[in-house]
Amino acid sequence: MGRLVLLPNLLDDAADVALHLPAATGQIVASLQGLIAESEKAARRYLRRFLTHDQMTALPLQTLNEHSRPDEVGLLLEPILRGQTWGLISDAGLPCIADPGSDLVSKAQKQGIVVQTLAGPSSILMALQLSGFTGQHFAFHGYLPREAPLLEKKILELEKRSRVDSAAQIGIEAPYRSAKLLETLKASLQPSTRLCIAVQLTSPYERCVSLSVAEWKKFSFPLEKEPAVFLIQSF
Amino acid sequence: MGRLVLLPNLLDDAADVALHLPAATGQIVASLQGLIAESEKAARRYLRRFLTHDQMTALPLQTLNEHSRPDEVGLLLEPILRGQTWGLISDAGLPCIADPGSDLVSKAQKQGIVVQTLAGPSSILMALQLSGFTGQHFAFHGYLPREAPLLEKKILELEKRSRVDSAAQIGIEAPYRSAKLLETLKASLQPSTRLCIAVQLTSPYERCVSLSVAEWKKFSFPLEKEPAVFLIQSF
Repeated sequence: MGRLVLLPNLLDDAADVALHLPAATGQIVASLQGLIAESEKAARRYLRRFLTHDQMTALPLQTLNEHSRPDEVGLLLEPILRGQTWGLISDAGLPCIADPGSDLVSKAQKQGIVVQTLAGPSSILMALQLSGFTGQHFAFHGYLPREAPLLEKKILELEKRSRVDSAAQIGIEAPYRSAKLLETLKASLQPSTRLCIAVQLTSPYERCVSLSVAEWKKFSFPLEKEPAVFLIQSF
Repeated sequence: MGRLVLLPNLLDDAADVALHLPAATGQIVASLQGLIAESEKAARRYLRRFLTHDQMTALPLQTLNEHSRPDEVGLLLEPILRGQTWGLISDAGLPCIADPGSDLVSKAQKQGIVVQTLAGPSSILMALQLSGFTGQHFAFHGYLPREAPLLEKKILELEKRSRVDSAAQIGIEAPYRSAKLLETLKASLQPSTRLCIAVQLTSPYERCVSLSVAEWKKFSFPLEKEPAVFLIQSF
């Protein structure tokens, strides 16, 4: 029986591999018999860091993303069931965390395949560490709703939940909607609630600002079309 | 102005550094002018991996844990305000995540100190990856209550919340109480609810079992006094 290895990817292409990936990553990648990736493009960028052109060309590649059908997910395990070791990566960060992969892991386990994971960067945990908010309890909500009334309702719900559970509440947004979400958060939250925005983590443009909403309203924060993590803590 | 660097620690002393810490960790540790640690014992174990005896002896060490008073936390920043670069580690895993550190980070930011974090192992995210449960939404609740009636109430609340939010619910327990918590979970949850236990992650004794509660009841799982992460997913 083969193995499925969950491999970390960088959060940003310009990030320093030595700061954000385990030392053994290259050696493990070189030992794989195939790679399952969220996209071919990201897979090639990833492999190029660790393999020669010939090694890359020889490595079988499969994709697994939100378009994959359940029966296709099962087929990805065939070579592993025959004894091969394959890797799984997502386009950025950790597979299965706010990214595809959990169906594959679940199916692998049901068939007795050993699943192994390596440490790596998660924008969710990095943002939580840098926020200064409590990390004793927290909740991650993925993408927040897009329609204005639903979004405002959700924001108030997260603010309340943060207070009741003493837990940081974390969400993400597509880069082109980050600035809009920041405005809605500032307009919807109580002045005393703390709001943190972690932008382009691990890139040369990384910023993390953690202020009360009252302070945010007096603060100018240029936010272009950049990937951002939003955190709320209310008391 | 100096810097505060949040450094990852291994989850288990027997874990392979090359699989779980970034390649640059040793180089960064060697460049520090001081280290803030959850305990002196863990700090020395950590430093021994990267420094010579003389380097270790020369490095100032401070502790930050649940016994630290707020005014002591502020004093820890003094050398950084004078221009030094200090590291922060917890006894295992990532500082500030289910571990001390967030007060220090919050105070550092308010004084304009740059805070930097390196990727590293988190038992919470590793357990979630290995569970096969959704990582699109999840909540971490820290230690669950110890008193039987409160614990049962909390378990039912997490089961309901997992269903309503479509989110995995994650908790931890002290090693000597893991077996007891597993029994209570099996007795309290619905048969169709999925329960995952990830034990001694990254150690040679790592196990991760993900089954429905009905399946758990027919399954023998020896669980000694071992650190464990518990995950619930209901539908």
